[in-house]
Amino acid sequence: MKVVIIGAGFGGIHLAKNLCNTNFEVVLVDKNNYHCFQPLLYQVATAGLETGTISYPVRRMLQRYKNFRFYWGEVCHIDADFKKISLKTQTAEEELNYDILVLATGTQTNYFGFESKKSLFMSIKTIPEALNLRSYMLQNLELAVMEESHEKRAELLNIAIVGGGPTGVELAGALAEMKNHILPKDYPELNLDEMQVSLFQRGERILDMLHPSLSEKALNYLKKMGVSVYLKTAVTDYDGDFLTLNGKDKFPTDTVIWAAGVKALSPAGLEKAIVLPNGRLQVDEQLRLISYNDLYAIGDLAYMPCEAYPNGHPQVAPVAIDMAKYLAKLLKKSDKSPKPFVYNHKGSMAVVGRNKAVVDLPKFRSGGFIAWLIWMFVHLMSLVGFRNKIAALFSWAYSYFTYEKALRLIIRPYKRGEN
Amino acid sequence: MKVVIIGAGFGGIHLAKNLCNTNFEVVLVDKNNYHCFQPLLYQVATAGLETGTISYPVRRMLQRYKNFRFYWGEVCHIDADFKKISLKTQTAEEELNYDILVLATGTQTNYFGFESKKSLFMSIKTIPEALNLRSYMLQNLELAVMEESHEKRAELLNIAIVGGGPTGVELAGALAEMKNHILPKDYPELNLDEMQVSLFQRGERILDMLHPSLSEKALNYLKKMGVSVYLKTAVTDYDGDFLTLNGKDKFPTDTVIWAAGVKALSPAGLEKAIVLPNGRLQVDEQLRLISYNDLYAIGDLAYMPCEAYPNGHPQVAPVAIDMAKYLAKLLKKSDKSPKPFVYNHKGSMAVVGRNKAVVDLPKFRSGGFIAWLIWMFVHLMSLVGFRNKIAALFSWAYSYFTYEKALRLIIRPYKRGEN
Repeated sequence: MKVVIIGAGFGGIHLAKNLCNTNFEVVLVDKNNYHCFQPLLYQVATAGLETGTISYPVRRMLQRYKNFRFYWGEVCHIDADFKKISLKTQTAEEELNYDILVLATGTQTNYFGFESKKSLFMSIKTIPEALNLRSYMLQNLELAVMEESHEKRAELLNIAIVGGGPTGVELAGALAEMKNHILPKDYPELNLDEMQVSLFQRGERILDMLHPSLSEKALNYLKKMGVSVYLKTAVTDYDGDFLTLNGKDKFPTDTVIWAAGVKALSPAGLEKAIVLPNGRLQVDEQLRLISYNDLYAIGDLAYMPCEAYPNGHPQVAPVAIDMAKYLAKLLKKSDKSPKPFVYNHKGSMAVVGRNKAVVDLPKFRSGGFIAWLIWMFVHLMSLVGFRNKIAALFSWAYSYFTYEKALRLIIRPYKRGEN
Repeated sequence: MKVVIIGAGFGGIHLAKNLCNTNFEVVLVDKNNYHCFQPLLYQVATAGLETGTISYPVRRMLQRYKNFRFYWGEVCHIDADFKKISLKTQTAEEELNYDILVLATGTQTNYFGFESKKSLFMSIKTIPEALNLRSYMLQNLELAVMEESHEKRAELLNIAIVGGGPTGVELAGALAEMKNHILPKDYPELNLDEMQVSLFQRGERILDMLHPSLSEKALNYLKKMGVSVYLKTAVTDYDGDFLTLNGKDKFPTDTVIWAAGVKALSPAGLEKAIVLPNGRLQVDEQLRLISYNDLYAIGDLAYMPCEAYPNGHPQVAPVAIDMAKYLAKLLKKSDKSPKPFVYNHKGSMAVVGRNKAVVDLPKFRSGGFIAWLIWMFVHLMSLVGFRNKIAALFSWAYSYFTYEKALRLIIRPYKRGEN
C-alpha cells in the first residue's frame, strides 16, 4: 500500500513519522525541501532568528525510517478516479500513483477581496516572505536616513499591521521592541518619534481566540510598548502610499503587513461541493473527504464541524498533530467502525514582548512573566530537532540579556511587488 | 576633517574603529549593510553555517562611536579634483564630499578570459552567491533522484571546482564530507558512486602559498576523502554540460565552482596609469595613491611592492587590518616623514576536513589535528562579535559530533545564469 502525503507541515510530518517502519510505502511531497515552523516566522522577519532555526530538511527528518521517499515538487492536480496526482518539479511535470492520498497542504494568506493589490502588501507565511519583510523594513530605514521630506520619511518609517490575531500582535510587539531598543542606537540620524507601529483590527478586540481579560491584557502591553492599536478599524483601501481606514482616515505608510487571515490551500481536481469558501475541505468523522475513497485531509485544511467546534477546528499545530496521529492509527488498524476524531483543546497563547505573554490553557489562564516562560517552553519544544531548539534558546537568551536582534542584514534587497 | 571610507571589509571596519572617538568625522560606505567574513563563505555554501554567523550589521558594529555615519550604497565614481564621490543608493544617485578618501573595496571573482561565460559558473565571493550555490547543489540532487539517464545523472551529481587555493580546497573538503557522511543517508535512492567531487588546479600543487610539504599533505587529505584532484590541469572551455580540460579531456558536470582567483575592485574615475591589470591600485609607502593627495587604498586593493613582497602583499585579512591600523595612526599624527608601512607575515593556513588542516606559521609548520585546532581558533577569533563566535562554535561542535551539516535548505531556488 502506497500512502502519499502532500505537505510537510505539522500534519504531514507527524503522519509520516507514525507510518514509517510499517508495511506502508510512504511518499511525502512538499514544494519545499524543509519543514517550517510558521509560528516563529515573525521572529525571522524581525531579525531575531535565523531561517535555519525554524526549518528542518525533510530528508534529514526521515532518513532513519525505511520505506520512505521524498519528492520535492508542487502538487497541481488530483485525479481521484485513476488514483494519481500531477507533480510539478523543477523541470517537468511528473505523475505519481497512490493507494491512499492524504492532503496536508495547510493555508495561505487570505487577502479578503484585496487580491488585486496583494503585491503592495507584505505577508509572512513563508520563509522568503519573512526575509523579504526583514530586508524591506531595513531598506526603508536606510532610505529614511537620506530623505529630507518629513512626509516621505513618515511613509518610510511607519509600519501598518493589518489583523489582530497572534501573528499581528506578536509582530507588532517585536517591531515595537526594535523601535524602542535598537533603532535609536543604529540610526542616531533619525528622529524615531516620526515612526509609528500601528495595528489595525477589524473586530472589537485583539486575540479573540483568548478569554477577553487576556485580550485586554495584551492590548495594554502593546500600548505600553508604544504600539498604536486601532480596534473596530477596517482597512478599506491602499494605494501604496496611504492606507484608508473605515473608508475615511488615511495612514501614511509604505509598509503594510497583511496578517488578517488565512485561506486553506488544496490542489485542483476535487469536487467543488466539498470545498468551502475559505478553502477548507469537508471531511467526515474519520477525516476522509466527503464522497471520496482513500482520500483524507488533515490539519488546517480539514473541515470537520463537531459539537465542540461547530465551525471546524482551530487552524493550529496541535490539531494537525492530533489528526495525523489519529489517521495513522486508522490506516494501520483498518478498523471497521472506528471512533470519530476528537480534539482535546490544548489552549491558546501569544507573546507580546519580553516578560509579556498571555496564555489561555484549559485549567490555567495567565498574563505576564509566567505566561511568557510557558510560551517559550511550548514553542521551543515544538521546534523540530535538538539543534534548532538549542539555536532558538541561544538566540532568545542572547536577545533577552542584550536587548539585541542581531540579524539586521539586507542579504537580498527586496523591491515591493516582487514575488 | 571628513574621512570617507569605502568598503566595510576588514580594512574598512578596522580603520573606522581606529578613527572613531577622534576629531575626524568618519563616513563608512558599503554596498551591503553588513560586514561579511569571506573566508567562511564556503561553509555557508555547504550548509554548515548560517549567513548571520559570518556577517555583522555595520550600524551595529559602530553604534557605540560618535562622529560616525554609515551610508548604504555603491560608489560608482570618484572625482578627486573636486574631492567628491558619486554614490548609488536604492533610489537615487547622491554626491558625497570628502577631505580624505580611503578605498577599501577588496576584490571580486576573476574569470580570467571566461567573463562571457561567467553566468554558467558558480562563485562564492558574496553571501547571496554562497546561498545560491547551496540551493543549486541541493536542487541538482533532487533532480538526480528523478533522472533516469545515467549520463544526465552524472552531470547533475558531479561537482567541479576550479582553482586549488584555500577556497577551492576548503570547499572540496566540505563537499567530500557531505558526500561521505550525509548524502548516503539523505538520498538512499541515489548511487553516490556516480558522484565525483573534482578539483582542477592549473599549477603544479595546491595551496601554493604554503610550504610544499604542506601542499602535499593537503593533497593527500583530499585524496583520502575521495576528492579527485587534477594538477597541471587548465580549464579551457565550458559549454554548460561539459568542462574541457587542457583542451581535450571532458568532464560532465552542471556545477562548476569558479575559485581560480580574484581581481581588485575599485570605483571609476581614477587615472588608468595607477591601476594594474589585476585591478590593484599602486600606492606609495604610506598607502597613498600614486599621484593623488588625500586618497588612500588599503587591503586587497592596495599594491605596494616592497622587498619582502615584490609582487605586492598577499590579499588576506591580516594585511588589510595592519594597513588600516597603520593608516589610522598616519592620519591622526600628521607626521611629516612617517615610516613606511611594513607587514609582518602572520602565516597561512587552510582546512580540509575534520581534524585535517595545514598551517604554515613563521615559527611553526604543521598538518593534522593541532593545525585544525589552530585554524578553528584563528577563524573564530576573526569573526566579529561575541554572538557570532558562539554561534560558529556551536555549529562546529554540533557538526563535529554528529557529522551533520544542518542547513540543507532550498530557501530560494536558484536558476543557473541568474545574478
